[in-house]
This record gives sequence, structure tokens and C-alpha cells, in this order.
Amino acid sequence: MSDSPLPFTVTPSEVAREASDISPGAQKTVKRLGVWLVGACGSVATIAIAGQAVMRRGLGGAIGLVTSRPEFASADLAPIESFVFGGHEIRKTSLVASANGIMRACGVADVFESIVSDLEEVDGRIRPGITRACGREIERLGINVPPIASDLEAIRLIRKDLDAFKAELGLTHLVVVNVASTEAVVDANDAWQSLSRLDEALTTEPSVLPASSLYAYAALSAGDAYVNFTPSLGSRVRALNELAERRGAVHAGSDGKTGETLVKSVLTELFVRRNLKLRSWFGQNILGNDDGRTLSDPMRKAAKLHSKDQVIRRMVGYQVETGVGIDYVQSLGETKVAWDYVHFEGFLKSQMNLQFTWSGYDSILAAPLVLDLVRLCHLAQLRGERGILGALAPFFKDPMGSAESAFVAQDESLLKWITEEHGKTLQ
Amino acid sequence: MSDSPLPFTVTPSEVAREASDISPGAQKTVKRLGVWLVGACGSVATIAIAGQAVMRRGLGGAIGLVTSRPEFASADLAPIESFVFGGHEIRKTSLVASANGIMRACGVADVFESIVSDLEEVDGRIRPGITRACGREIERLGINVPPIASDLEAIRLIRKDLDAFKAELGLTHLVVVNVASTEAVVDANDAWQSLSRLDEALTTEPSVLPASSLYAYAALSAGDAYVNFTPSLGSRVRALNELAERRGAVHAGSDGKTGETLVKSVLTELFVRRNLKLRSWFGQNILGNDDGRTLSDPMRKAAKLHSKDQVIRRMVGYQVETGVGIDYVQSLGETKVAWDYVHFEGFLKSQMNLQFTWSGYDSILAAPLVLDLVRLCHLAQLRGERGILGALAPFFKDPMGSAESAFVAQDESLLKWITEEHGKTLQ
Amino acid sequence: MSDSPLPFTVTPSEVAREASDISPGAQKTVKRLGVWLVGACGSVATIAIAGQAVMRRGLGGAIGLVTSRPEFASADLAPIESFVFGGHEIRKTSLVASANGIMRACGVADVFESIVSDLEEVDGRIRPGITRACGREIERLGINVPPIASDLEAIRLIRKDLDAFKAELGLTHLVVVNVASTEAVVDANDAWQSLSRLDEALTTEPSVLPASSLYAYAALSAGDAYVNFTPSLGSRVRALNELAERRGAVHAGSDGKTGETLVKSVLTELFVRRNLKLRSWFGQNILGNDDGRTLSDPMRKAAKLHSKDQVIRRMVGYQVETGVGIDYVQSLGETKVAWDYVHFEGFLKSQMNLQFTWSGYDSILAAPLVLDLVRLCHLAQLRGERGILGALAPFFKDPMGSAESAFVAQDESLLKWITEEHGKTLQ
Amino acid sequence: MSDSPLPFTVTPSEVAREASDISPGAQKTVKRLGVWLVGACGSVATIAIAGQAVMRRGLGGAIGLVTSRPEFASADLAPIESFVFGGHEIRKTSLVASANGIMRACGVADVFESIVSDLEEVDGRIRPGITRACGREIERLGINVPPIASDLEAIRLIRKDLDAFKAELGLTHLVVVNVASTEAVVDANDAWQSLSRLDEALTTEPSVLPASSLYAYAALSAGDAYVNFTPSLGSRVRALNELAERRGAVHAGSDGKTGETLVKSVLTELFVRRNLKLRSWFGQNILGNDDGRTLSDPMRKAAKLHSKDQVIRRMVGYQVETGVGIDYVQSLGETKVAWDYVHFEGFLKSQMNLQFTWSGYDSILAAPLVLDLVRLCHLAQLRGERGILGALAPFFKDPMGSAESAFVAQDESLLKWITEEHGKTLQ
Repeated sequence: MSDSPLPFTVTPSEVAREASDISPGAQKTVKRLGVWLVGACGSVATIAIAGQAVMRRGLGGAIGLVTSRPEFASADLAPIESFVFGGHEIRKTSLVASANGIMRACGVADVFESIVSDLEEVDGRIRPGITRACGREIERLGINVPPIASDLEAIRLIRKDLDAFKAELGLTHLVVVNVASTEAVVDANDAWQSLSRLDEALTTEPSVLPASSLYAYAALSAGDAYVNFTPSLGSRVRALNELAERRGAVHAGSDGKTGETLVKSVLTELFVRRNLKLRSWFGQNILGNDDGRTLSDPMRKAAKLHSKDQVIRRMVGYQVETGVGIDYVQSLGETKVAWDYVHFEGFLKSQMNLQFTWSGYDSILAAPLVLDLVRLCHLAQLRGERGILGALAPFFKDPMGSAESAFVAQDESLLKWITEEHGKTLQ
Repeated sequence: MSDSPLPFTVTPSEVAREASDISPGAQKTVKRLGVWLVGACGSVATIAIAGQAVMRRGLGGAIGLVTSRPEFASADLAPIESFVFGGHEIRKTSLVASANGIMRACGVADVFESIVSDLEEVDGRIRPGITRACGREIERLGINVPPIASDLEAIRLIRKDLDAFKAELGLTHLVVVNVASTEAVVDANDAWQSLSRLDEALTTEPSVLPASSLYAYAALSAGDAYVNFTPSLGSRVRALNELAERRGAVHAGSDGKTGETLVKSVLTELFVRRNLKLRSWFGQNILGNDDGRTLSDPMRKAAKLHSKDQVIRRMVGYQVETGVGIDYVQSLGETKVAWDYVHFEGFLKSQMNLQFTWSGYDSILAAPLVLDLVRLCHLAQLRGERGILGALAPFFKDPMGSAESAFVAQDESLLKWITEEHGKTLQ
Repeated sequence: MSDSPLPFTVTPSEVAREASDISPGAQKTVKRLGVWLVGACGSVATIAIAGQAVMRRGLGGAIGLVTSRPEFASADLAPIESFVFGGHEIRKTSLVASANGIMRACGVADVFESIVSDLEEVDGRIRPGITRACGREIERLGINVPPIASDLEAIRLIRKDLDAFKAELGLTHLVVVNVASTEAVVDANDAWQSLSRLDEALTTEPSVLPASSLYAYAALSAGDAYVNFTPSLGSRVRALNELAERRGAVHAGSDGKTGETLVKSVLTELFVRRNLKLRSWFGQNILGNDDGRTLSDPMRKAAKLHSKDQVIRRMVGYQVETGVGIDYVQSLGETKVAWDYVHFEGFLKSQMNLQFTWSGYDSILAAPLVLDLVRLCHLAQLRGERGILGALAPFFKDPMGSAESAFVAQDESLLKWITEEHGKTLQ
Repeated sequence: MSDSPLPFTVTPSEVAREASDISPGAQKTVKRLGVWLVGACGSVATIAIAGQAVMRRGLGGAIGLVTSRPEFASADLAPIESFVFGGHEIRKTSLVASANGIMRACGVADVFESIVSDLEEVDGRIRPGITRACGREIERLGINVPPIASDLEAIRLIRKDLDAFKAELGLTHLVVVNVASTEAVVDANDAWQSLSRLDEALTTEPSVLPASSLYAYAALSAGDAYVNFTPSLGSRVRALNELAERRGAVHAGSDGKTGETLVKSVLTELFVRRNLKLRSWFGQNILGNDDGRTLSDPMRKAAKLHSKDQVIRRMVGYQVETGVGIDYVQSLGETKVAWDYVHFEGFLKSQMNLQFTWSGYDSILAAPLVLDLVRLCHLAQLRGERGILGALAPFFKDPMGSAESAFVAQDESLLKWITEEHGKTLQ
């Protein structure tokens, strides 16, 4: 990273070079694939890292990994075992401590002892994170945060950490995944509209983007992949997509579709295809982990609810009364319980209902998807794709680059992308 | 119908003539489409007939009708309003009496008065049905049944009623739908294997087929469409498909997919596509209508449970512990409540669960599908199709002519059949 | 009512006279019992009035009426049929219109036609209500409200209506029941501490009490019974109890215990008596009637949630994590659905849970309790009781005059009051 | 035990001597209290024994123990820590093996290692059990069963084991608790009507009683307490109560009230006391432990369902449509999930419903009750009571010696027995 005032805007020629660096055959020689987790000691990151360690030690299978389905076998994805982890964390904590608590809370503590040394190794590669325009709730947590005066300084710091990680481990590919706590909603800024305006603003204003987007800038500017698994802003900014396109980087998001929303997007098929009229769909989530606690910040709750609440309307094509609640119930720990009540109308205006209760561990559901996304982003890197990866829509509540809301259709598109596109790169 | 001993076996030349009778343009001139319901005063038939009357009088919309979805608009299906109903019924009752009770129980009684005269008109076209090898529970109900000595006599009687209905009303097309109570499971008979053996057996043995199959024989021998909306045997016999193929008749079945199984076949997508391991799926149904009462006959319950219990295993491709219960709770009336408990395993062998409660009116959910099936069978008739209509799989729990168990995929195939095939007939 | 500046403070001698007016034998000669409903066209009042009409016409039984249980037979309560209704209403509407909508929404519309004339009769006795310090949501509804400058003027107006009702119909006893929408929480006022201070404030300040308490003042000052079926302030003010004691009036409240809270107060027995540790109890209510809509006013929602949320803690005697949500889902109409998730700990610290879904019609559940409360207040009047009727605790979420939270114990106390106290008055 | 042909019939004088042996002060000097568990390695026994070890080692509290409630403090019950265990088991297994599996399945395995030595010690005191007239399912399990020719021989063998246990450990008091698998229902035998007829039959017929009753005979004949925690016959035989009365022994039963039935007996209060009409109550239980597997024997299932199904009818006093199902779902392991759907009618014949899902570990819920019952039986022994202990009704689905079905009332009676009766013995 240079010290120029607009360091991250790259010229098309640079892009071409970077992109062409990746030959189709490179995949075979990839030894280790870099994975950088923002929120590295959070519950999702912890289970992702612990899970990879468990798999590497041959202690557990691949249940919950989408890319372990037979349909993905032909794609020759990077093995999960090849992942090497680093990350940013704003709290004073460790993966070992986090895993000890979370794995117990998810009922999977029996393999903890076997992987302590793996977790300690990753702990050595976790760097202090940044908090900028995240909302008070997150900023209160951020006690392990270096003093930073501007967004520009933050980007440089992040970029330095990413570069050092890659250099130290000799990594050719890196996927950065945001699994940090959800940020408060921020007001849109005109500077987000183009890369030139953004770069201009970054040199003149102290605060232009929230932390999630600063991480995205750093990653994309380095040509690395960026995935936003949270409802925070991340790379959902026109300027950042421009950066990705120029630097030959891929990005995807946002907000991992793990539980209630997933059920919703599947169940809605029933009503649409049977022409039953949805009258209202009310969902209530209760959860007891840090994610639940930080959601007590109303601004951040709003961000979360927004992406949860739109799936149904998009799928049915008419106005449905919907409501989603999230409340923190500490005693539940990592368990997330969602109750949904669906009121619908059938033939002759008869009134009927369906209700469901989903009881799952959010981190356990999310973590394998993070590993899947890394593999798929890496595939896109190898294929020389750039910009938004719309094909990854089935992983997200609020997918970028896809107008499809139905989960089954999203997944079918992903399978098509895997096979058709793969063929193209092999020509 | 001749008096020859093997009256229903037709020669290929006959078939050709019948099929070619139907020109692509005939659709435009169809005035009335005959619909013959076996179990004409049962709850499904009653709501279907009442619903059509309500629609014809402009008192209600088309919610719950699959073929009202915009995707079906191009197919130029026969309007619901063109249907004219007749049927067989084994009990001493009337549509008016039945509708009075059922519509109240489903909370849709406010339109009852407006359609009494329509129901009375259909009542005048309902003929005594037959009960043969149906199980004791049904036979106990059958107090309005003519004395019949053999299956052959039964087929002739049914055929006579169908022929008279068509002649009287000048109908060119007829669709027979079995919506009678579920029969007890019957042992397979070697004579079912080919039409020649079946015809032979019919002349020598008094009882070869259960009632549902005798209705199918009568309908298919006349070149009419036959739909089995129940889990009874119906046309699921090699010999009867041979009859359909020869006579240029279409048939479809079996067991309408209206409630719990529909939810199952949609929800299973979630587990399959997220690679979550289903460990067990237990479902319990309680219902209070006649359907529930007759299911108290254990033999007939077995028939029902069989088709409900196989959807999941087929979709996931591995052995899942499944169980389905059906119990009669009189106080529920037409309401059917299903509770399903799904135990699944995720990443790192964590254990999670999903449960749902479906509370619907089975007849209300089933009736529009019966109307849909009539329209679609009629389309197939116009197109000159013959034999099993596998494209109608999304309507059935245990579809004939389709290996697909996933509801979304079944529905996509139906949409393709509607459009692609339609193109073909227009050439 | 005199025009003196402190008109409602009565002297002890007056009280004695009024109380002694009521001889034990009076009950036999009571022809008609006056019932005045504040919120007379609301859903609870409508069902109460409609229900009494149905009973009087012999069209329906006494299901849901607590005082119809055999245990109450000996108490010789006033027959429901003897009730004669009047009331206040702030909206431009009628009982007939309200009943037409609500009875349909509760699935009990088949008796509507039979009672229209009864409803019209009561409509003729409904007077414009008042809105003072009720919160914006209610004040927006109040389009049928006379212009009033002070609380004092409001009390006089209410009192005039009550007096006129009694005079016109020759009623010796009147029970006023508040079934109006829940008011916003108001800040406590020092003037509430004693009747003399309250009377002083009423002459000097324009606004001292919310509407519910002004109705209470008017009723109690006339020696009539006052029941607060809502969580609004009502007579829960020291000064008003002083007024009741002096005037020989009885009062009770507050917040009718109809659904989720009732289930809670019964289920909690299980955990207490089995020594299972409640860890958290989260409840979510969704409802679609006017009550739900006005609860969208956060201040009024707070009032409601407060009384719902304390039952459990009181019963178990230790700190339990509790949460209660109420949300408006219009499509549900009169149906109220509550989902509660109870997390508890058993032997060896094992974690278990219980969840329930309650699906009921709030007005249908509340209305018979209103009729019960009228009968029981009238009994207390006949017995010459005065002040708070703590024995009526089982009817309320937040009972005045009772420290008992367990429903079964509350009900046992009521039964004891009925029988023991009754004996006392007969001596 | 003598070798006379009728060894167990005791004379009144013997009884008197035994009863007076127990002075009120004896309690203070009791060092160890003998507890003999029939089905010693079953899940309930395992958790009871493991739980006592955990408590003795100070590793866990008393949650789930009814007798730990403050109301029981004054009764000066034997400390749980004083219990010393032995038992009968028909399978080739061990407590250590059983605890290893069950504690894991109940999520309480973290204390397992600390108590292995305690379990091993009890393992040394477990004797081979007997299987007589238990039903095929249990008899198939019984591979560790001595060859026995008659009921008489079985009783002698059991008695020998009990006597040896007491002698070896110098125990003055013993409580025998049947926590073995539920036996198949057996036909009543006239010999059960009196002790003399029973003793006669035992000498002349090889099989008169099922195993559970033979254990009861052995225990009661020795003056020891017998508790039947299962729905098997046990001591529910007139002759055995006669034996208990004569020998000064106490007994109680039957069928521990741990989950769904407990919820039922509490919830029913709501409907009774609010005069809401229960129309139907359907419950479905699914469970995956040995108890569930043996219930697949239809005869034994019938026994279980009988005691589950009568609580509601008894409490409401009118005919309610009820149904209870139990199915084995292996994947659930020790978890028992019960879904209940309650259909009720309110004011104006409106229809409403309540449903609940109970998700608990049956053994975890049952085990502390077994410990409670031992303490309470011991108290009765110290007080010199004899015969059926009706006061223990709250612990049982189908209580002997109590006509009360309401759980709260049963519990209040128990509290009264604890305090009032206790007072009596102290005089």
C-alpha cells in the first residue's frame, strides 16, 4: 500500500495484471487458502474456526456444509482443511476462551480439548480491530481498539494487517468475511456513489463509512474477496463495487440466512404455488448470545429487522402484513428460538393458519456457511470473476446482485453457476 | 356399451378415431365441461361444487385455485364456470344438507343461501354409488347402494350413469374424480398385470378390484378422464393404464396433497439444500370429519399413512426415522390440525429441532385442487394425450408417473408442461 | 349532586345511612340491576351486552361465566337476566354496528339477528363519554366528546348521566365497569393521597386524574360500585378508596385476567410446587382488534405490559428473566394469539422447556367475567361491604386488595368469601 | 423368612411390635436409610442414584426435589445424603455404563467422572431381578434372571435379597421403589381380593401376580415401604394392602406424574375455574429411551395410556373427548416431547384452543421425585403409619388412596399431612 493520498484507486492495467495472475491451473497448487474473519472471536467465527480444526483432525463430518453436497463435487473447490485463519477482534478475549463457552452452550464441547492447540495458533494471528460509526453498543465493547483519527487511517491499518498475514504465510488468495456484530444503521452519504467521490471524501472527511465498509475497502483494494455475513453496510456501496471491479476483486452479501428467514423463504413457496393468500406473517425471535445483546441497541435492531422482513413481500408480489421481533433472553445462551404465526386465506375466504417454532444454534448454522462462502469466493477468484457474486444469493437474507427471493430458485442458480461457469473456465 | 363378455377392451382403431375427434380448436366451442364426482356429497365434493356455484354467481374469487395463478393464463383452460356436475354417492344424503353443515364448520356459511338452488340442481344428478372391497367402515355407510353381484355388473352400472349424464347434457368431455372415503388396503391380484388378464378375471371372478378401481375402469373405458384424489387403489393398476392408453383416456393420482404433506415436501428442501441431517420427523394429525372417522378403520389408516410417510425419505435420499399418526377428534369438525416435530443435526453434530402446527380445513384446501385437476385433465384431453399425466404430480402425495418428490420441482414441471406442450398443440 | 365546591366528600353519617338502607332481604325484591359500561361500544362491552341478551332470550347457556359454577349457587346472586345496561362511549358508533362486526369476527354471528332489538334499546341509553389525560391514541378516537374545561366538570357530567339512568329506570343498585381502551400511564400526583387533598386539587387544577379515575370518582361518590377491568388507573388511588369507604361503595380491579396471564398464573404452580427453577419466561401476544391498535401507543403499551409481567415473579419468589410483547396484527381481528416460551432447569442442572400457544377471542373471554363482577359487586352491596373487594382477585391481572398471585388460591379465597361471608350477612 | 407355606401372613401382635419399635426420636439417630430400586440400571434409577452422589459430593443443588421446598423444612426428613442404594436389575448392564449414556443424553455429563466410584459401589449391591407375567417385551430384556418355577419362589428370592441388604448394612428402614419398565396389563385374579386367598393361590398356582406385585409382596411382608412409580400393578391389589396393614408397612403409587400429565392436571384448573367447556384434549408423546421402546408392546402401552387419559375427565366432571398417543422416536434419546391440543368452548359457544409442547427429560424429572418419595415414606414409617399413603397423591398420575385429581389440591393435602400429622407424632 502506497502513501499517496488516494492510494486505493487502481488503474485498469493493474487490475488486468492481478486478474491474469490467476491461471485456471493455479487451483491445483494452492496449498493454503487465507481466511480473515472480522469479529474473529465472535460466536460465528469461533465455530467456523473450531469446526475447521475438528474436520482437519478427522473428528467430524461435513454436515451443514452446503458445498459438501454431491452437486458441488465436480467444482473441485479448495478443501476446507487448506484454510488458514487470521482476523480482527475489538474485544480483549481469545478464541480459546470463546470456544470453551460457545461450544458448551451449543452442546458440542466434547471435541473442545482436541482442538485447543489449533485455536491457540489462530489466536496468535488475531489483530486488534477498529470501531467507527458502529453504534454505541459495539463501541462500548471495543476496548482492544487502536486510536485512529480518520477512516483513511483505519483502512491503512486494516490493509497492513491483511498484507502482513498474506506475506507471512505466503498466501496467494485471501477471503475476508465480516462476522462482527451488526452495526447501527448509518445515513447514506453522497460520497458513496462513486469511487472517485469516495476517495475524495476519505482524504477530506474524518468519517465517511462505518467499520464494516472500511474493512471492505481494505480487502477489495488489495484484490481480496470480501463477504459481508451481517446486515451492516459492508460493501453494499456503489463506490466499493467500483473498487472491486477495478481491482479484480469479488464480493458478496449480505446477512447470512441461517434460521427463521430461511424457513420463511422456503415455506412461502407453499402459499405462492398453491395460490393461498397470505394475510399476515408475524415472527418473534428470542436469543441469548452477544448477538442478541447488541441487538438491544434499537438502531442496530432496525438494521436486522429490515432484512428479515422483506423476504415474504418480494416472493408473493402483493402487500402482506408482516412483523418481526427480536428480543434478548439471556438464559437461552446460544440457542435461538423463533416462533412464526402465519395467517392465510383459502378457497371461499376461509381463514387458516400455520405456526412454527425453530430452535437452533445460530452460530452452528452460520459457521459452515462461512466456510462455504470462502470456498465459493475462492472459486470465483480462480475463475477471474470480479464484482458482486450474485450467484451466492442463497446464503443471504438480503442478497446483492440477485432479484430472486425464493430459496429453492436461488439454490438452483448457484448450482448452475457452479457447473456452467466452471465449464467456461476450463475451455 | 355392448353386452359382450369383455365389453371394455377396445381395438386400436377405435382409440385412434376417438383421439382424432378432438381438434385443437375444439376448446373454443366447449360450452359445458362434465365433472363427475365419486363421493358426491362428501366434504371435498361439496366444497368443490359449492365453490364453483359461488364463483359462477360472482360471489368469490379464485383464492386457492392453482390454475388461477398468472402462469396458467396462457393455457386457455376451460373456465370453472363451464363445469357441470354429477356424481355417485353411497349414503342417503344431499348436497344441500352436506353443504349446510360443512360450510358452517369451515366458517364460510355466509354464502350458503345464495347457492342453495345450484346445489339442488346438482342433487338431481347424483346417482347411488357402489361399495365393493372398500373395507367395513365404508360398507357400513353404504345404505344407498344397489344390489350388485359382481364387479362386472358394477362397472356396467357406473358406465351407464356416466353415459346417461353425458347424453342428457350433451357433453363432449367428462372428467371423473374420486373424492370418496379412503378404502381399506387390498391385496394385489395377478389379474391387475394386464388388461386381457383383468378382463378375463372380471368375467370369471365376482371380486377383482375395489370400488375406486371399478369407477376408474368405467371412466377410462369410455375415454373419459379419471383422477384419483384419494389413497385408494383407483387407476394405479397396470391393466387400467393399458385401458387408458388404448381408449385415449388420461388419468392421474393419487392422494391429494393438501396439508401436512405439502408443508413437509416444502420444508424438506431446507434440510436437503443446507445439507442438514434429518434424524427424525414425526407428524400427528387430528381431524373430526367423516374422513377422520372412517380412518378409524385400521386397514384404511394404513393406506393413508403409507402415502404420507414416504415424501421425506425420497427427497433426502437416506434413511430417516419417520412416523405419522392420524386420530379422530370429533370436536374439531372439518378442522384438521397437524403437529410435526423435526429433529435434525447440524455442524459439529449439534442437535436442533423445528416444529410446526398446521391448522386448516382439509376440504377447503382440497376442493380448488379438484377444480384445477379437472381443468388440467381437460387440457390434456384437448391435446390428445393419453395414459398417466405425470405432470400433475404437485397435486398428489403419491404421484403416478413422476419420480420427483420435491413440491417446487414438481410445480416447475407442471408449468413447463403447461407452456411447452401448449406450444406443441398450437403448431 | 350539589353545586358546592367540594361536592363529593360525604360525611360519615351519610355513609351509615346509605349502607343501612340495604337490608339483607332487599336482594329478593331487586327487579333490575343497573350496569353502566364505560366504553359501551367497545368489544368487551358489546359481547357482554349481546351475551346477556342471548341468555335472556334463552338462546345460549352460561359457559364462561364463573358465577354459573355450582359453587356459586348458594350465594343467590342477581340473575344475569335482571341486568339493564347503559354506558358511555367516546366514538360515533352504535352497539348494533359494533356487535355486527365483533360477533362475526368471533364466529358467533348466528344469534346476532335475534338480539338486534335488544342492542338498539341499549343504544338509546348510551351517552357521550369523556377523554382526559388518556393518551393521544384514545383522544384521537374521541370524536363524540362534549367540550369540558376541568376534571370537576367531567365528574359532574358523568354523575349526571349515572343519576339520570338510575332515576329513569328506578334502579336501586348500579355497578359501573370500565371496559374502555387502556389509557397511557400518568405520573402520580400528590393530590391522590387523600380525599381532602384530591377534592382541593379538583377545585383548583384543571387536570388531576385520567378519565378512568374520573368515572370512578363519579360512581363511588354516588355510592355505586366501580370495577376497573383495564390496566388504567381507575380507582387505584388512595383518595378514591377513601371516597368509597365513606360513601359505602365497593370497588375492584384491575386489568381483567383473560388469556395469557391466566395460563401463566396456573402453569407457574407446576414449577413452584415441583421446585423446578424458572430461568426465563418470554411471552408474545399478537392481536388485531381496537385494543391492539391503541396499544401501539407506547405509553399505553407500557401500562399493559407492567401488569402482565409481574405474575410470575410474585409467585416464584425469586428473580426470573421475563419479557412480554404485544403487537398489532390487523388480519387477526378479534383473535388474540399468545406464544409463551418457558425455559426451566431441573435436577442436575438439566435444561428443559415448555411452550404454549393460546388462541382465543379476548372479548369473548372477558365479557362473561364482566357479568360475573357485576353480580359479585351487587352481592357485596347487599351485604353492606365497602371499599376494595380483594376477594375478586381471581378476575384481575393486578388485583387490588390481595397479595395472592396464584390463580387457584385466589379462586379458593373467592369461594370462601361467597360462602362464609354470605353466612355472616344472614345472621 | 420362615419356610412355612404361608410365610408372609403376619399376626396382629407382630404388627404392633414392629410399629412400636419406631420411636418418634429414632429419626435423629438414623445414620443410613436403605433405598432398593427395582430396575436399578434403568434411566430413572440411574439418575436418582447419580443425583444423590452428586449432592453428597456437594456438586449440585436440590432443584427438582419437592421436599427441598421451604414448606418441608419443618418435617425433619432424612437427608438425601443418608440414602444407601441397592436394587434388582434383569439386564446384564451396570450403573456406570447406564449413567455414562443417560447423563450425556440429558446434557448433564460434566459431573459423571466425579461420581464413577459411587456408582461402582452401588453396582456391587445390584442383584439379578425377576420377570414374571411382565409381557414379552420385558421378558426379552431379562437375560440376567435366575430360573424360577413359581411366584412363591420369586417372592422368597426377592425377600432374601432385601433381608441381606439390610443385614449387611445394618439398616433399620428400607424403602423399595419400582422404577422398572411398565408391565403389560394382566387380567384380574379373584385371589387378589384377600390376603388369605392370595396366600392360598401362591401355594397352589405357579403364576398369580406380575413381577411388580411380587416385589411389593416381598417388601411389604418384611414391613418395608413399597412405592410403585410405574403404571404396573404393583401393590394395587386388595390383598397386598391387607398385607401392608398387618405388617405395619406403608405403600404408595402409582405411575409417577412427571411431564404431560402434570401440565394437564394444572392447566385443567383454568378451564374448570373459568367455567370454560373442554370439548377435546388430544396429547401426543414422542420419546426415544428404553421406556419408549418397551411401550411399543401394545399391551403395555394400554397400561400407560389408561393412567394418562383419566386426569381430565375426573377434574371437569363431565365427558370430554380425550386421546393420548405415545410413540417411540429413537433419535430423541432421553428427551420426551409432548404436544397437547386443547379445544374449548367459551361464551356464546365460541370455539378456542390452547396447545402446548413440553420438552423434557423424563428421567431427570422423575428421579428427584423418587428421592422425595423415599424421604416421605420414611417419615410415614417413623410416624408408625400403615397401609396406603394417600397424601403422596401429587406424585402420581393414578394415585392410590386419594380421590383428588387436581394437582394443586393434592399438593396442598400433602403439605397439610406434613405439618398436621407431624405435630401429632410429636405429642
